[in-house]
Amino acid sequence: MTRWLDEEEQAVWRAFYSATTLLIDRLDRELQHDAGMPHAYYEILVVLSESPARSLRMSELAVKTRSSRSRLSHAVTKLEARGWVRRRDCDDDKRGQFADLTDDGFEALVAAAPGHVETVRAHLFDPLTPQQVEQLKQISEAISSTLKT
Amino acid sequence: MTRWLDEEEQAVWRAFYSATTLLIDRLDRELQHDAGMPHAYYEILVVLSESPARSLRMSELAVKTRSSRSRLSHAVTKLEARGWVRRRDCDDDKRGQFADLTDDGFEALVAAAPGHVETVRAHLFDPLTPQQVEQLKQISEAISSTLKT
Repeated sequence: MTRWLDEEEQAVWRAFYSATTLLIDRLDRELQHDAGMPHAYYEILVVLSESPARSLRMSELAVKTRSSRSRLSHAVTKLEARGWVRRRDCDDDKRGQFADLTDDGFEALVAAAPGHVETVRAHLFDPLTPQQVEQLKQISEAISSTLKT
Repeated sequence: MTRWLDEEEQAVWRAFYSATTLLIDRLDRELQHDAGMPHAYYEILVVLSESPARSLRMSELAVKTRSSRSRLSHAVTKLEARGWVRRRDCDDDKRGQFADLTDDGFEALVAAAPGHVETVRAHLFDPLTPQQVEQLKQISEAISSTLKT
């Protein structure tokens, strides 16, 4: 038996889906315009910038960006072409590879960050009360808990 | 001056972004597997199915699916190739076009709906309390209100 959504649940689901896609589209468009990269690439640079020696095993980078190996590999190839990331074989594991953030990649991230952060603030934090921000955190964690494998 | 996010705000933003991308990826993967279409295509079929005579002007369909004209046109071309949607010129407006949902398109939607709705229920409604569902609606509407143009 399908547990169909009632009218109110449909309204909630559509409001949520609409808000998230509008926000992610806006972030994508602005980063593409200002920094020549979609938000998914920006996230890869952020994760690398926060890793020791700005370097991470590709398999760990995939987990941290919630990417499939093939999608991440595609993105890293694009980032390598811009000189922002470099792939390097592991010394102790023939099948493993590291992704290193280059100095140019770090500079691209530093240049893109202010505009990106301002967009997140303007469209996520500014319209919400402090109480709603706390609610959103709890809600997000509850949703994620059913989706991590 | 950039209004940087503090540590707590960063945690909220990452939790929210992570939850939404995990959920949308899951919906995409399941619809792709079960019905051979990404969630964006499913949404186009839903909107057409709810329109009078299952037909809508392309410009209105773009607004209702929050798509650019070029992205929608690309999607409709794919849906036409499967025989699920048909484009038709407007009689009274040489530049306008309608998209019609075909009977096969409606059947594809009916076949895909139960699995899709179950996924939305399992990962959005089941993990939330009724109070959180109501909070999420308010939060989503507040976010959207800053993004609609």
